[in-house]
Amino acid sequence: MILIIKKTDDKEQLENLMNWIKSLGLGVHLSEGENSTIVGLVGDTTKIDVDLLYTMDIVESVKRIQEPYKKANRKFHPADTVINVGDQKIGGKYFSYIAGPCSVESEKQIISIAHEVKAAGAGLLRGGAYKPRSSPYTFQGLGENGLKLLYKAKEETGMPIVTEIMSAKHLEHFYNVDVIQVGARNFQNFELLKELGGINKPILLKRGMSGTIEEWLMSAEYIMAEGNANVILCERGIRTFEPYTRNTLDLSAIPILKERTHLPIIVDPSHASGHARLVSPLSLAAAGAGCDGLMIEVHNDPHKALCDGAQSIKPEDFLVLAKKIEVMLPLLGKEL
Amino acid sequence: MILIIKKTDDKEQLENLMNWIKSLGLGVHLSEGENSTIVGLVGDTTKIDVDLLYTMDIVESVKRIQEPYKKANRKFHPADTVINVGDQKIGGKYFSYIAGPCSVESEKQIISIAHEVKAAGAGLLRGGAYKPRSSPYTFQGLGENGLKLLYKAKEETGMPIVTEIMSAKHLEHFYNVDVIQVGARNFQNFELLKELGGINKPILLKRGMSGTIEEWLMSAEYIMAEGNANVILCERGIRTFEPYTRNTLDLSAIPILKERTHLPIIVDPSHASGHARLVSPLSLAAAGAGCDGLMIEVHNDPHKALCDGAQSIKPEDFLVLAKKIEVMLPLLGKEL
Amino acid sequence: MILIIKKTDDKEQLENLMNWIKSLGLGVHLSEGENSTIVGLVGDTTKIDVDLLYTMDIVESVKRIQEPYKKANRKFHPADTVINVGDQKIGGKYFSYIAGPCSVESEKQIISIAHEVKAAGAGLLRGGAYKPRSSPYTFQGLGENGLKLLYKAKEETGMPIVTEIMSAKHLEHFYNVDVIQVGARNFQNFELLKELGGINKPILLKRGMSGTIEEWLMSAEYIMAEGNANVILCERGIRTFEPYTRNTLDLSAIPILKERTHLPIIVDPSHASGHARLVSPLSLAAAGAGCDGLMIEVHNDPHKALCDGAQSIKPEDFLVLAKKIEVMLPLLGKEL
Amino acid sequence: MILIIKKTDDKEQLENLMNWIKSLGLGVHLSEGENSTIVGLVGDTTKIDVDLLYTMDIVESVKRIQEPYKKANRKFHPADTVINVGDQKIGGKYFSYIAGPCSVESEKQIISIAHEVKAAGAGLLRGGAYKPRSSPYTFQGLGENGLKLLYKAKEETGMPIVTEIMSAKHLEHFYNVDVIQVGARNFQNFELLKELGGINKPILLKRGMSGTIEEWLMSAEYIMAEGNANVILCERGIRTFEPYTRNTLDLSAIPILKERTHLPIIVDPSHASGHARLVSPLSLAAAGAGCDGLMIEVHNDPHKALCDGAQSIKPEDFLVLAKKIEVMLPLLGKEL
Repeated sequence: MILIIKKTDDKEQLENLMNWIKSLGLGVHLSEGENSTIVGLVGDTTKIDVDLLYTMDIVESVKRIQEPYKKANRKFHPADTVINVGDQKIGGKYFSYIAGPCSVESEKQIISIAHEVKAAGAGLLRGGAYKPRSSPYTFQGLGENGLKLLYKAKEETGMPIVTEIMSAKHLEHFYNVDVIQVGARNFQNFELLKELGGINKPILLKRGMSGTIEEWLMSAEYIMAEGNANVILCERGIRTFEPYTRNTLDLSAIPILKERTHLPIIVDPSHASGHARLVSPLSLAAAGAGCDGLMIEVHNDPHKALCDGAQSIKPEDFLVLAKKIEVMLPLLGKEL
Repeated sequence: MILIIKKTDDKEQLENLMNWIKSLGLGVHLSEGENSTIVGLVGDTTKIDVDLLYTMDIVESVKRIQEPYKKANRKFHPADTVINVGDQKIGGKYFSYIAGPCSVESEKQIISIAHEVKAAGAGLLRGGAYKPRSSPYTFQGLGENGLKLLYKAKEETGMPIVTEIMSAKHLEHFYNVDVIQVGARNFQNFELLKELGGINKPILLKRGMSGTIEEWLMSAEYIMAEGNANVILCERGIRTFEPYTRNTLDLSAIPILKERTHLPIIVDPSHASGHARLVSPLSLAAAGAGCDGLMIEVHNDPHKALCDGAQSIKPEDFLVLAKKIEVMLPLLGKEL
Repeated sequence: MILIIKKTDDKEQLENLMNWIKSLGLGVHLSEGENSTIVGLVGDTTKIDVDLLYTMDIVESVKRIQEPYKKANRKFHPADTVINVGDQKIGGKYFSYIAGPCSVESEKQIISIAHEVKAAGAGLLRGGAYKPRSSPYTFQGLGENGLKLLYKAKEETGMPIVTEIMSAKHLEHFYNVDVIQVGARNFQNFELLKELGGINKPILLKRGMSGTIEEWLMSAEYIMAEGNANVILCERGIRTFEPYTRNTLDLSAIPILKERTHLPIIVDPSHASGHARLVSPLSLAAAGAGCDGLMIEVHNDPHKALCDGAQSIKPEDFLVLAKKIEVMLPLLGKEL
Repeated sequence: MILIIKKTDDKEQLENLMNWIKSLGLGVHLSEGENSTIVGLVGDTTKIDVDLLYTMDIVESVKRIQEPYKKANRKFHPADTVINVGDQKIGGKYFSYIAGPCSVESEKQIISIAHEVKAAGAGLLRGGAYKPRSSPYTFQGLGENGLKLLYKAKEETGMPIVTEIMSAKHLEHFYNVDVIQVGARNFQNFELLKELGGINKPILLKRGMSGTIEEWLMSAEYIMAEGNANVILCERGIRTFEPYTRNTLDLSAIPILKERTHLPIIVDPSHASGHARLVSPLSLAAAGAGCDGLMIEVHNDPHKALCDGAQSIKPEDFLVLAKKIEVMLPLLGKEL
């Protein structure tokens, strides 16, 4: 880490800063210039809070050289992490599909979709039981009962299940969930991340609406620092000024993450765009960018339920999409 | 609410949509045009999930007329809400100061700052016990012990205290806290908001990093819908492309909120900018924009602790600032 | 267009508004509700300035139903526009490559790269003669002499050339340019767009750094309204908060544009990311999203010139990339 | 400037980079670490194109120490620049008002508004003759005739006039304009900036919709590098995700600019918000933040013209506002 220190007569503040840095067990290398002093910090700087440094009067700017994440860092773990979920493998050379409805609505609904997406090639079943909604007056999901319906679908089809958690106090009901999803709004709910770091189920961590790639890896690090190394990252779009899409899918993040971390990265094109007709082109785009899989909303009857006639595609569309991606996978060094 | 429906031959989907709307107890008014059909929804549309509508194939666009928030809405509650905290009043014609250090560090530190900010005119004491940090490897605050030190400072000075909560499971330790702060990262932690809606302490709700004004009011609505009407909004800057500030303080939000809600709105210029030298001009700006108070980081000795030599100003600077604002208040129809 | 008018006693302002709308030759349909009045505007609303409406006191909100662009609108021109440039076709079922160096530096450089990218499959040659640079102190391009070197490369290889214009006063030197590029910074330089609307060369219009899709189509409309129908859109990334990439490539824009306009859309993955190693994955992603071609920076010797050792890939990398895209094209209904 | 170079075996590329830096007349100071090499550049680095460096394979990151702007830099010009326009002074201890209608519409309109805003305390008259509109189908301003009407108003009232230029080819008609405005859309129209650098009238340079503070100062530098030192910066809001305002007024930019540049900074609260009722609170906020003046849209009859019933306030509102600001000025070390 390099600090640029302003030319100052306040030698006391500089000295305090140097002492504080040394007290953290770091070496200090000072080089005074005409207009500023450059301070090199040697050692493990991950414990340094850059925000604090930035806000000191004498600090002109701070430049990290070493990334603040360690366990998620590819430098210290060069091989791709491959996560086993039931008979499925996520990461490395594998390309995975997590498919299912937006919300679990009934036993019949979830089981029939599960069969359909399995037949179409999906390896994991998704479905929301606890739903984060911007309004307290809209449907909040079936909760614990929704989880039980997912368990039935799992029993019927053998598919591992992925579903979102919104509070650690619900964790006791997730006993039969295979992958626990953390949604964009809980991206920096650090207390929840710590609790999920203490269990041994894989965690699918969505990117926050305005989360930087570095913050995302730091949130993964919160989980990993507690002992749970099975983190799957999920890009779902970031908030920008463009009103035609709900979010702007950031596919540049895929190759950047592939350089910086060994963790698997999947893409959710359904929530990013908010429009079913964008799901297929964005899925092909995400595959081209090099992701490890897709999480796609699929419904079986657009006219039965409103929630299903939404950003979801039909099983037959999913099948067509999967066939196209199958052609692309060898170009990407991937397989199903 | 107005829906613009695409010209479509899929009459079944349109009929399903109409039936679903009616099943919510809403009236429907259809007017067919050449290229699109306009559907007016009559009744309480707050329970409608606009995201769902938007994602239906046949829906071209959705236009809310009625706001989705009710309890926070000035239309249904024209008078300013004034919240009593100890002997302090927040909102209406009052202008309040919440001041104190970034983190509680020791009994001596918090008590001495409390005395100083009280002398300088602050009505409430702030101080962080549970600290949200982007890295798991940096100092996370003194936690429960930090709260106890705040309680001692409250006992010594009589100042009501404001401090941040990060998980509902810590709530039992907040028994003597006067105002519970929800930080930007928990802005849409709906489970936490619901739990805080069930207690009777005032909640200071910071805006999320990429939270829209409407989402912010909906998060307030989550608290209020559970029965707790004492919500104070706190603008702290939004995330933009500009790198010179940590966040971009959105002062246009103040007069907009004043039109839309009766809730008090305070501004945190310390965290928005990240630079102590911006605190004073941004405080004057926030006062000019019409806010109900300021939450300011103040420290007493810049050289003792790093965290204090940060975005915090000194008590004497706070005093100078408060004197200036005193001159401005009559222009704004405010008093201390 | 629908206006939501606030409940008001200022009948005069409402009447003035209605008269002004009628004076524009539009029909008006009023429907008064309890809390607001809904006004439907019937006729060609493209001449209405929504910003003006929005800023009237009595106007609560404005909802366009009809798009403000006409000539660029797919509704009025359902078939894909295919633009002929020399022997190349851009748009429709064709997939095009525009390749070449960032800047034209010398005759030898541009001719050798031209030969190499042609051999690797590129149909058009790009190269900057007038360079928009954020600093007045950095190299501004070879200008008119750069154009002459491009003309030599065109003569040698037969490749049509694409290069950027920065001022209409340089237009006289562009006599032998095949496609004139308008850069992101001149995206809303309306006077330049009008002048380019008056000539008959194809215009490649890059998206502005914070340009919405609708503004982009309106800028195309500026060119088309003057009579030049040959506009090629080029996505090059938008400005967001993410610091790891120079811009965030918005690939959702591709399928959205395909719905809304008949104009060809190409993608520039080099400038979007700013990193050569992102060019290949982002190119595959862009192809998957359904674009009509790629504009790629290619250099022939990374060690000779700094500018070339930049966001550019080498001809052999371009060849590998083009081979992969060849496999994808049939999935996308495209051919070279 | 500091470069962080990746650990690499490509010694040739590093050597090429070092030679290129030296060829620019800069000194180089290398310090090799375990994982990266740190290169310090000594000398005038303003001619270095950081974008180019960033895009080299071996460059991990670049850290400027010296700002890339020189003539606009307060470090090299510590005293505030005060610009004389007729009998008005802009910058330093002065607080200025530029007021007038959005568009010049008729002789009667502009002269009557000029008299009214002068009486209310405005020192300069604004009015649009060339109007940048997002649609080619909406009113584009009176152009040259509009300028002539402004000249009449100047003759009648003695007020210096401020109006926008959209193309250098119109410059010949601006002979009697006192301050030439460059709009947000031409913020990086470098060819226009260079031409305006060659004349000796003050230039009011608005910030681009997604312009960073550094880019803004570089655009000022484009004008100043050509010899015209009379640049006035004008903050008018940046583009963010928030839909309730047209733009987000960035008032943090004021104190930041005050540190970095000696140029005067005024604020346009009318265009930033798009709502007349936000003009007054945002003007007080801007004054509090420490700006050197305000540019405000004022109209005299809300019911006569639509364009006037927009983001403009009435002369009597302007008068009330100016009285309030008069009370604030001594707090800010300012006078009229």
